[in-house]
Order: sequence, then C-alpha cells, then structure tokens
Amino acid sequence: MDMELWYTEKQTPSHGITSKIKRTLHHEQTEFQKLDIIETEQFGKMMVLDGMVMTTDEDEFVYHEMITHIAMNTHPNPKHVLVVGGGDGGAIREILRYSSVEKAVLAEIDGKVIEAAQNYFPQIAGGLSDPRVEIQVTDGIRHIAENKNKYDVILVDSTEPVGPAVGLFQKSFYEGIKEALKEDGIMVAQTESPWFNRDLIRRVFRDISATFPITRLYTASIPTYPSGLWSFTIGSKKYDPLEVDESQLQSFDTRYYHPGLHKSVFQLPVFVQELLTDKGE
Amino acid sequence: MDMELWYTEKQTPSHGITSKIKRTLHHEQTEFQKLDIIETEQFGKMMVLDGMVMTTDEDEFVYHEMITHIAMNTHPNPKHVLVVGGGDGGAIREILRYSSVEKAVLAEIDGKVIEAAQNYFPQIAGGLSDPRVEIQVTDGIRHIAENKNKYDVILVDSTEPVGPAVGLFQKSFYEGIKEALKEDGIMVAQTESPWFNRDLIRRVFRDISATFPITRLYTASIPTYPSGLWSFTIGSKKYDPLEVDESQLQSFDTRYYHPGLHKSVFQLPVFVQELLTDKGE
Repeated sequence: MDMELWYTEKQTPSHGITSKIKRTLHHEQTEFQKLDIIETEQFGKMMVLDGMVMTTDEDEFVYHEMITHIAMNTHPNPKHVLVVGGGDGGAIREILRYSSVEKAVLAEIDGKVIEAAQNYFPQIAGGLSDPRVEIQVTDGIRHIAENKNKYDVILVDSTEPVGPAVGLFQKSFYEGIKEALKEDGIMVAQTESPWFNRDLIRRVFRDISATFPITRLYTASIPTYPSGLWSFTIGSKKYDPLEVDESQLQSFDTRYYHPGLHKSVFQLPVFVQELLTDKGE
Repeated sequence: MDMELWYTEKQTPSHGITSKIKRTLHHEQTEFQKLDIIETEQFGKMMVLDGMVMTTDEDEFVYHEMITHIAMNTHPNPKHVLVVGGGDGGAIREILRYSSVEKAVLAEIDGKVIEAAQNYFPQIAGGLSDPRVEIQVTDGIRHIAENKNKYDVILVDSTEPVGPAVGLFQKSFYEGIKEALKEDGIMVAQTESPWFNRDLIRRVFRDISATFPITRLYTASIPTYPSGLWSFTIGSKKYDPLEVDESQLQSFDTRYYHPGLHKSVFQLPVFVQELLTDKGE
C-alpha cells in the first residue's frame, strides 16, 4: 500500500482542512515567508504561504474574479489600476479584461511569489507579461505613500493579517489609499472570513467607513479558504456598487461573477450584517 | 502535554475537514446508521451520522433557517407542513415561527436521531414538544405514498444520498411529493454541494423540473458541510419565490435568513448556473 500524504491546515487553532496530495513541487523560505507549491487531488496545484492556502487551480477563479469585478465594473472608466499584493497575477488577469485599462500596476513585496506563480500557475499569472502591466517588487505601503491622485481602482489582494501583510489592514493604510486614488476612485480589500474573523471585519469596516463616503461589504464562496465564505470590503469616493445600472455592466467569460450577481452579493446573512452595525458580539 | 483528539471527515475521497474535539459524548449503531455526538472547540457539539457532520451548535442556524424560510415565506398561508428526515428538529423549530401553521409532521426514519437531538441539542429539538408537531418514526417514502393532497409545504431534510437516504433523491419520490402536496404546494430538498456534487445537483434539478412547473435552486454558506457552500432545490406548483412581494414577507428573529435575502440567494455563480442548464461538464 502506498504511503498517503495529506496537507492539513489549521485555519483556526482548532479547525481546518485536510487534502490528499499527489506530490510536493516546491519549497523555499523567501525573504518574507515560507512558500510551498503542492499538488492536491481535489483542487489541483495549490500555493501555500506560511502554511496558509493562497490559491489553487480549481477554485482560484472565485477569489480573483470577485476581488476584481465588483469594483472594476462599478467604476465607469477604469484606466489606471493598482493591485497591492496579488503576486500570483490572478487579479491582474481579471483587470486586463477591461478594454478601458491603460496601466495595471502590481506592487508585490515578494518577488519569489511572482516567480513561483509564473512557473507553476501559468493560467493565473499569464497576464503579468501583458504590455499594460508594470510589476514593482516593493512594499505596497511605500508604493501607496509615493503615489497621489493616480489610480481609478486599487485592489488590496493581501495575505492574512499576520507577517508581511499586517500593515495592509491598518486605518493609516486606507487613508493612504484614499490619497492615491483619484477623486472618483474605488478601493477593495480582501477581509477574511465572516465566520472566523469577526473582529477584523468589524474593525476594517469601521476604519474604511471613517475614510470613504461609501463602504460596502460582500461575500463569495471559496472552498479552500477558512469556513468557505470570504468577505471583501469596498471603499468608494463616488460610485456605489448598489447604484449601478445592471443592464450597463460589462459581461465577460467568467466562471463566478456575472452582472446578475453584482448587487445580490451585498445581501448579507443577518450574522454578517450585524458585524457592520456593531450589533455583533 | 495532553493528548489532542481531532475529528477528521473525508468529505470527498481526497479532501475534508478536521476539528479539535474536547470529548466524545455519545456513540451508537442504530438500526439505520452510526450516530455520534462529539464536542468540538470550534463549533460546539456536533452530530455525526455515518461519519458525516449533520449539525453543530454554531452553524446549525444556517441550514435550518435556509431549508425552511424560502419555501415557507413564499407560500402565502402554510397550514400543514411535512419534514421528511430532519430528526434533529431544527427545521420544525423554524416552521413553528409561522402563526399560520396548524400541523407540522416530522417523518424521520430513525427514532434514535430524535432522541439524541432531544438529549444533546435541546435548543435545536425544543420545538418537537410543541402541540402542533406530530412525530412519526417512519420511512418518509412510505409516508409520502400514504398521503395525498395534504400538505402546503414539504421539506426534504435528508442525510447524504448514501444509506437510508438514497430513495429521497429519486424522481419517483419527487412525483410522490407532488401528489402529497395540495394544488398550490411547494417542496424543497437539500441537494448537497455545488463544488463536490455536481452530477447529483444536475440530475435532481432535471427530475424536479420534470415534475413541477416552477423549479429553483439557491445556496447558503455552511462551514461544516463539504466545501462550505450548500444547495437547496425548490419545486413549486404555483408560487414562485422570485415573484413574491418582498415587502410582504414575514420577518423573524433569525441569524441568517431575512426578507432582503429571499430573492438574492437565487443569483447563482456562473459555474452553478451551468449545472442547471446542462452547459456544465
């Protein structure tokens, strides 16, 4: 009988997922984090940073479509777009679907993540070689501080709020993003699980609400992320995703997002709504 | 250092969840299945049937509210309601919120499930002692066959389509339900994960579509169920959940469902829509 190898991730101290693997493909300690690529039977290849699943072949489309299209399709004419983090290139791939985009900047702190994505996930990272894309291997916080009134849309595609990404969940960072956006700009950040990260969601929603006139939270189903339910928080200076004319939204050959979903994803379960109104625990 | 015990469930042959447990509370082999009650750190007490999580203290509200309120709140005046399966009593608890309900029948094949729920999950099973409730420890298929033109709403709250529940996923069963419903009746069935059970969802949707004039599929986030995303399929003779007047829907002190969610849960991701139109694999 062959030995069975299972990847087990404690998504909380007392709960997690376990997935049978065919092989380990890559392991390195980068300047910033541990980077592993494994091949699982259920979800195909999986990129793991510091022991946490970042993306997989089978469900990556949900995260990358959903961090991108709500904000991009709400803005009427996004030309200059920034992704903070997102070294796998998946958000860039989705951004490039918009013909209005003239420049998409990727500010990723860890160049090894970009290299690994290009080697092991070409279908995710392929867009990074597009001539409209500028890759900057740099601290997103520094990039934000050095750019004012420049971007139409900024996506904060960060890792979990531990290690290198801690600063990407701070109020001062959202204030910097506000300055880096044009007068009608929109930001969106991945903001973890409504089941397991309630305090974080509550705090980030309060901080973005204090910074932007329009703040909205929406969710998507991502089976390899903790609890399977993931949240994203929008801060917008002018355009409200709930006020768009659905019939005017752009359609793409996507596998999760479509215009009919654009507003419905903001209809939250009661226990998630309560996080945003301070009625929760 | 204390020994750590973890409950690990293979939700597919190569993927699952693992959850740290405080203690095992109950184990028995009933006439129909293995029944375990364990206490986990993350989700509180958990009922496990044949090695699959059925319900937990922390997330039971999602399943029980969502299998119940879409159909019940779509029907204008549900008086007689049947739950097939659902021995834990959670669906009955939600049904009893409607003042129109005169009788709620529970047709559960395994009386031991009812007993265990009453012993270990009183907050879920409490409604079973309500005078409007009639408990029948019987095969749901037989109950359906023996009752014609009787119910306003029928909920199929089954276990997975293995073992005792196989017959609850067959077309002939849905045809029987149609007969057991009044001329304006509605049924809903739990229909597994859009990520892991695509063939089943496709087949059940086709079978219910062939039986009822109105067929709809919706989803909810349940972290202890495979993939974290769960589907429910409605078959209705007259009332369409998408045609209700939202302002007329009843509101309850629920934690997931609310009238604003009633229609939006039918806005499905593209990969789920495709299962219903035979465009999927």
